[in-house]
Amino acid sequence: MNKEEAMKKLKIRVTPIGNGTAIDHIQPGVGLRIVEILGMNSDHAASIALNTESKKTKEKRKDLILMENRFLTEEELNKIKLLAKEATVNTIKNFKVTKKDKLDLPDKVESVLECINPNCISNHEEIKTKFSIKKSPIKAKCHYCETSMDEKEIEKHIKK
Amino acid sequence: MNKEEAMKKLKIRVTPIGNGTAIDHIQPGVGLRIVEILGMNSDHAASIALNTESKKTKEKRKDLILMENRFLTEEELNKIKLLAKEATVNTIKNFKVTKKDKLDLPDKVESVLECINPNCISNHEEIKTKFSIKKSPIKAKCHYCETSMDEKEIEKHIKK
Repeated sequence: MNKEEAMKKLKIRVTPIGNGTAIDHIQPGVGLRIVEILGMNSDHAASIALNTESKKTKEKRKDLILMENRFLTEEELNKIKLLAKEATVNTIKNFKVTKKDKLDLPDKVESVLECINPNCISNHEEIKTKFSIKKSPIKAKCHYCETSMDEKEIEKHIKK
Repeated sequence: MNKEEAMKKLKIRVTPIGNGTAIDHIQPGVGLRIVEILGMNSDHAASIALNTESKKTKEKRKDLILMENRFLTEEELNKIKLLAKEATVNTIKNFKVTKKDKLDLPDKVESVLECINPNCISNHEEIKTKFSIKKSPIKAKCHYCETSMDEKEIEKHIKK
């Protein structure tokens, strides 16, 4: 058996999605973090490719997530935006891409981040966290205590 | 576009593996736990299918993990045996399955489980944990303190 035959034989057919969400062009290493944050459960089929070949991403490798019958809320979309800046999110309905979300960073996010300041009121009372977002370099500033978080802190403090 | 055409068009080609490991017939919901335990890093390509259709498993759904250029140690294999009793593990070299591991439970495991007894010496000194395994119902007994763990406790205390 030559390589091509083997490739053909071994081609893995991941169930295509007729309805659901495709998160593509995720930088390698971030896919599983997104899975963790979105919280996959056993009701929906999903396919995850890690470090797969890519022509688009800088590293020539990417992570990819397909979720069947699972659609993202605005909060979930904002979490992905903060975590995977190069990613694209496609909503698929009846086997057609119906919505393509450009992952521009929002100016404000609610219920997406946790404040790093242990004394912040948002860590003690049942209130929505609110942050304003600045770009290049990315910063998130808490609406309540005005503590500012840098890129690494943001990545670590996205709510599950 | 009818469903079949769409299926064809949307077929996702996950990079086939020429060399590596395929863990198949994992009961749904356990795939990501195995990923967590094996610790995927960004050096290897991997594909993970969750809740995908299956003819073999009881639930008619399964999880599946393919890891490129990643082979399992005996310890890792034992962890999978304890966690995914119906799973099959195939080692692939040069596009051929070279080794098919039947996932029979071992009689003894080393460095695979953590003891639930907080006073056990294995939780205080730098020594290998050792457990003897009994089947139906599955039990693991610590070599040092003789504490016995049931199926749920075993699942929770597999080392990362």
